[in-house]
Amino acid sequence: MTEPFDIVIFGGAGDLSFRKLIPALYRSYCEDKLPASSRVIACCRNAQEQSAYLQHADEALQEYLAEGEYRTEAAQAFIEHVYPVELDITESGAFWQAMAELLNEYRQRVRVYYLAIPPAIFGVCCQNLAKYELVDERSRVVVEKPLGYNADTANAINEEIARYFDESAIYRIDHYLGKETVQNLMALRFTNVIFEQLWDAKSIDHVQISISETVGLEGRAGFYNEAGALRDMVQNHLLQLLCLVAMESPHKMKASSIRAEKVKVLESLRPMRGDDVKRHTVRGQYVAGNHKGKLVPGYLEELAEAQSNTETFVALRAYVDNWRWARVPFYLRTGKRMKQRCAEIVIQYKEVSHRVYDRDAGALAPNRLVIRLQPEESIQLTMMAKDLDTLDMRLQPATLNLNFSDTYKKFKSDAYKRLILDAVSANPSLFIHRDEVAHAWAWIDPIIDAWQSDAQDPHLYRAGTWGPEESDELLAEDGFKWFNAGEQH
Amino acid sequence: MTEPFDIVIFGGAGDLSFRKLIPALYRSYCEDKLPASSRVIACCRNAQEQSAYLQHADEALQEYLAEGEYRTEAAQAFIEHVYPVELDITESGAFWQAMAELLNEYRQRVRVYYLAIPPAIFGVCCQNLAKYELVDERSRVVVEKPLGYNADTANAINEEIARYFDESAIYRIDHYLGKETVQNLMALRFTNVIFEQLWDAKSIDHVQISISETVGLEGRAGFYNEAGALRDMVQNHLLQLLCLVAMESPHKMKASSIRAEKVKVLESLRPMRGDDVKRHTVRGQYVAGNHKGKLVPGYLEELAEAQSNTETFVALRAYVDNWRWARVPFYLRTGKRMKQRCAEIVIQYKEVSHRVYDRDAGALAPNRLVIRLQPEESIQLTMMAKDLDTLDMRLQPATLNLNFSDTYKKFKSDAYKRLILDAVSANPSLFIHRDEVAHAWAWIDPIIDAWQSDAQDPHLYRAGTWGPEESDELLAEDGFKWFNAGEQH
Repeated sequence: MTEPFDIVIFGGAGDLSFRKLIPALYRSYCEDKLPASSRVIACCRNAQEQSAYLQHADEALQEYLAEGEYRTEAAQAFIEHVYPVELDITESGAFWQAMAELLNEYRQRVRVYYLAIPPAIFGVCCQNLAKYELVDERSRVVVEKPLGYNADTANAINEEIARYFDESAIYRIDHYLGKETVQNLMALRFTNVIFEQLWDAKSIDHVQISISETVGLEGRAGFYNEAGALRDMVQNHLLQLLCLVAMESPHKMKASSIRAEKVKVLESLRPMRGDDVKRHTVRGQYVAGNHKGKLVPGYLEELAEAQSNTETFVALRAYVDNWRWARVPFYLRTGKRMKQRCAEIVIQYKEVSHRVYDRDAGALAPNRLVIRLQPEESIQLTMMAKDLDTLDMRLQPATLNLNFSDTYKKFKSDAYKRLILDAVSANPSLFIHRDEVAHAWAWIDPIIDAWQSDAQDPHLYRAGTWGPEESDELLAEDGFKWFNAGEQH
Repeated sequence: MTEPFDIVIFGGAGDLSFRKLIPALYRSYCEDKLPASSRVIACCRNAQEQSAYLQHADEALQEYLAEGEYRTEAAQAFIEHVYPVELDITESGAFWQAMAELLNEYRQRVRVYYLAIPPAIFGVCCQNLAKYELVDERSRVVVEKPLGYNADTANAINEEIARYFDESAIYRIDHYLGKETVQNLMALRFTNVIFEQLWDAKSIDHVQISISETVGLEGRAGFYNEAGALRDMVQNHLLQLLCLVAMESPHKMKASSIRAEKVKVLESLRPMRGDDVKRHTVRGQYVAGNHKGKLVPGYLEELAEAQSNTETFVALRAYVDNWRWARVPFYLRTGKRMKQRCAEIVIQYKEVSHRVYDRDAGALAPNRLVIRLQPEESIQLTMMAKDLDTLDMRLQPATLNLNFSDTYKKFKSDAYKRLILDAVSANPSLFIHRDEVAHAWAWIDPIIDAWQSDAQDPHLYRAGTWGPEESDELLAEDGFKWFNAGEQH
């Protein structure tokens, strides 16, 4: 990518923009991926936001970049690319006219419209873009998931955007997919016989995918209480990660082939209805507890409501009913106010079919591949080997690091940077296609329906724990245990 | 092992004894594996050897131990365990009487008779041991391979020993099998699904086993010129390593089960006769050349003979005709005066069946497991991964170390120490059974017969090279290349 481009951040003064997008664009600048005259056009809701914007952006860089990344000179040079503009998205008129003039200073340029705004105003935003003739074949729109509350509302949102943008110009972001480690997981799988040949029900015992947060509501109370953990996290992030683990090899690493394979996985998810839902899912809601030694309030206290049966935690057992994964359980789990912040995929291989060493040699642990996306990125393979420090035949588990990079340890990969630059260069392979959204909801909706008709309250769990007991029982039924980050396995 | 034992080294003042056995026993002492009152009885050929023995042993420790291993105090304490005695092995009489008296100071003790002497006097040595009633159910005899020049002479030697010792008391040493890395290779194979499930013709492309020496004749001219590389190295060391790579999993890691599996491999070796031998083997003989920058003489010059068609190098293509290894070539190679000293097993996996990444991502190398036994021990697995230092999808090979040990790097494993202690504690699993010797010769003899009837001279190769061109051609015919130690692959 050498051509200059414009990126317009709708919701430019919002949390996502300052925490993620501005730092990501600064990093792009530092790596020469923000060609001269490229513009970051940050839409502010009022003149006040606008006038304070550049200083605010600079402060955000200092706060959210990793240690050692912020350099005054570079930051100043980067800030010169940033154009704060005042814009009321919902009102066409002078603001939009000014926006059009600004953009049309460079007519032939790639334009990325980043919708860091509530889905409710996606439609009017796109409508105004179209009205002011700001959509052409070099324009792309980036939207953050989750989109909608169910299949219907998601479809309505997608439909609205689709009125103005072709599907090929719509980039639905899931930032987990932008992690370098996700790329490496695919590279490892598809370029090594020792992985791809054993990536199936014959060799893999079960899969665990967990995203645990330690935070509570963080000001998203209204949205979250309507949505709950299943919609907020499982429908998008967890199912996307499941797709990447479970998908067949695409014939080429290109967006349409990858998407086709992901859709096949979503279609293969065994539907859950009625009693299945009771058997295979656990809902939880946190109560007051311990976060880093301090008492933190429970969900109801944060919500300031006397009653809510929204789940802040969900654990479930899913099956991908195809030849590759027949009868292999995929355990998904996510929650707020859990013990540790972590996003992790655990591929647990089967035990060796027969033990040839006697008991004195020690216990055998099955092979395990752990792909961690958060808080740090890593891929680790655990295998058994001889303890070479003794003449006796003692077996011991050993852990290999498969994220091969020295410099990588110093600089964290930045999923937003990758995804923004992918959108700029029209590489949609790490974005979510509308079909995937539709299929994900098609699997999620019946689960929510069953919960609603069952009308059971979520199980309670203390803040600072790994969720309700029932979550552990879900795995114990099958003879397994959750691999909790930071604990000895 | 906590009980004191006696080890009698016949040929106690010989090269093997000073270079390998005395240092190994010193190490055993340092690791508390030589219990108080245990005796190392070193047989000397005359009074002169005997009187100089302890000093000679101390010098040997200083010379042959690794840096930092020799400690004066420990060496002195160890030397107190050493009893040099004068003994003419072939003459019964006063010497043997004295030996009997010495040994009978401890009647109930485990006795290990280490025959570091020419096979020609194995018989009379054992006969005298029996005559002086020094053989009981706690006695073991350790012999070095190679035994004999062919099936018949090997059988004769084994028969002679068998007159006085039960097969279960005969420990035929192959020091390569005493390496910790060989143990680790088996541990890795049999305790990890990611290895054992792919250990077959479906996943493995071919196997290379090389033992290259840089030395020439080293005073073994008479023996060597009769034997040649095939008898001296392939029949024993290389076939043993092949057995360990190719064998089925034993049902238990015990000697009889392991041996049964090794014998099955030897029986499965595709016999070579007549023209097969021409097609699948290459003989070489070194001529004057370069060793570490110096001109070294050729084989004939070292031999001081005008003519010899003994091979100092052999390369061959073998097949293990069973279900697991059908059509997988095993390339064996060994030679003297080669470029580097190395003993290495290379397991080359097949390429992935399909390439999903485009050409820009870089070349794909198939997975490879390299087990190195010499000069240092290591097990390395090469796999492909994403280059995490760039946002672009670049694939790169990365090498993992599977010999997990920190202290291991500091202290070299000592195969003789392990094997002597295994003999002491009656653990024969790393020794060679008579059946294995017989089966190995049964495969080797027809090759030698074919060479003899063909009467072709060996191909010449310069000292300091990887052998004759024909060796490279042997692999090139199949589209492969030797992995030469120290070279980029």
